[in-house]
Amino acid sequence: MARIYERMAVIGCGLIGSSVVRAAREVGAVGEIVVFDAGEDVRERVRELGLADRVALDPADAVKDADLVLFATPVLAVGEAFKAAASSLAPGATITDVGSAKGAIAEALHDAAPKGVFVIPGHPIAGTERSGPDAGLAELFENRWVILTPNDDASPEYAAAVETLSAFWRALGSQVETMDVKHHDLVLAVTSHLPHLIAYNIVGTAADLENVTQAEVMKYSAGGFRDFTRIAASDPTMWRDIFLANKDAVLEMLGRFTEDLQALSRAIRWEEADKLHDIFTRTREIRRGIIALGQESPEPNFGRDRGKH
Amino acid sequence: MARIYERMAVIGCGLIGSSVVRAAREVGAVGEIVVFDAGEDVRERVRELGLADRVALDPADAVKDADLVLFATPVLAVGEAFKAAASSLAPGATITDVGSAKGAIAEALHDAAPKGVFVIPGHPIAGTERSGPDAGLAELFENRWVILTPNDDASPEYAAAVETLSAFWRALGSQVETMDVKHHDLVLAVTSHLPHLIAYNIVGTAADLENVTQAEVMKYSAGGFRDFTRIAASDPTMWRDIFLANKDAVLEMLGRFTEDLQALSRAIRWEEADKLHDIFTRTREIRRGIIALGQESPEPNFGRDRGKH
Repeated sequence: MARIYERMAVIGCGLIGSSVVRAAREVGAVGEIVVFDAGEDVRERVRELGLADRVALDPADAVKDADLVLFATPVLAVGEAFKAAASSLAPGATITDVGSAKGAIAEALHDAAPKGVFVIPGHPIAGTERSGPDAGLAELFENRWVILTPNDDASPEYAAAVETLSAFWRALGSQVETMDVKHHDLVLAVTSHLPHLIAYNIVGTAADLENVTQAEVMKYSAGGFRDFTRIAASDPTMWRDIFLANKDAVLEMLGRFTEDLQALSRAIRWEEADKLHDIFTRTREIRRGIIALGQESPEPNFGRDRGKH
Repeated sequence: MARIYERMAVIGCGLIGSSVVRAAREVGAVGEIVVFDAGEDVRERVRELGLADRVALDPADAVKDADLVLFATPVLAVGEAFKAAASSLAPGATITDVGSAKGAIAEALHDAAPKGVFVIPGHPIAGTERSGPDAGLAELFENRWVILTPNDDASPEYAAAVETLSAFWRALGSQVETMDVKHHDLVLAVTSHLPHLIAYNIVGTAADLENVTQAEVMKYSAGGFRDFTRIAASDPTMWRDIFLANKDAVLEMLGRFTEDLQALSRAIRWEEADKLHDIFTRTREIRRGIIALGQESPEPNFGRDRGKH
């Protein structure tokens, strides 16, 4: 494969950052790779793993001469890291990120960007519940969606930069979609942020029970709870930042979820059998839609996390 | 393996019933297998699949001369099926079931049982989101827990019957635990019933959004939502019955969950960053507990359902 960028700087080298590094290296999408991470232990581990051509000691040093700068820090850390790097950016560089909440990041990036660089916020919808540079996987982005949220710059140069960044993600195995920042944050609030919030919450509720021990909860977690514990094991800092950065959309979705849950609770209390059956039948149809979309096999999920009553 | 029962009657042949049939056959735990299901189409399919030695046309006929009678219908259908079968039960037969809510079933079985049979309600914590006789798997119970909820009969004959039923489940690959009916229903309310209720609810909430299309929800469901759609694809009749049969424990757990969710919502609204970080760190520890328990590998879940922001 022909190189897409000559030098990629990755700021923040956890699960996603180190996966981008591994994947880009594997497919030869970039020439040189420079990594910076705010954690000294992470930088040391990146050196030990031999992930980068060079490990920089600050963001400004990392981004020098890079034609692609990718921020993969927790969402609320992007702004400061970008300010620290801004004066060293090469003219014509593309600036992107991988954050799950785009409103706050897009604003911070567009505000602080010097003239002559192309800011194109992005979000690969891929991951695991693990964290850190050891957790990265070269194949993490294969058959996954990447959403880019370009600004309203109508210049041919900006359009070309968007196309090049799209080609980069496609080289890593992803499909690319562009979307308005606000709409992205609304969609992700329901497909990702609310599910994580709920998973964190139920695992906390279970831990607080007086009459059921934690050992029992763990032992019988194959009943459905186990799926939630996996989601609720995701990185705490990353998720704190996402909920704060996408507060309005998350609270809106949470309000709707709670209303619906109260209605469901009422149907159980008053033993409205037909209503319950209708609700549960409808959600089954949605699952069929996902399978029909070809995003998931209809086969049962063998192995660790078979869901069950 | 030596036979444990000479003749097993299975009443209700969906995912769990047909899995018991397949597993018992595979390991040679029973001699003859007789199946009854209230659905004519299910009976026809059981014949086509050659699952049983005989397909009976009513419960009374099915249980004749059986030394093990296993009810695997939806929870609220067990009582009526048992009444229909009671007069034909062989003396000394063991009567069990596989329901996820034990209070209602245990009462129905103990009330209607003739003298001389051994009623031992049970619950294998295993399954998939699929339904029907085609969905069954011989290996479904391997390395899973089965909870038996024996009554307070202190006779050596009853104890022997419990031991034989335990040996049967162990032959199918499970570990067996005994538990009080009330405690079982409380434990399962949190490890299984509440997770399912929440999954059903969020999938419904997502389907009702005006500004996000169902296609978008499906397309970007890898962000965490997909795990919920799998759980929410479980059998509607089975789950309607479970929520009605275990109403009190489910409403109690739901009340606690909702309180906790309101507190979490408030912490987001008021941007209490440290509080959020603490909550998310705590739930991560619980996941580590499950991994330490040896019930799950710490490796990421490759394949279809990688969770992610």
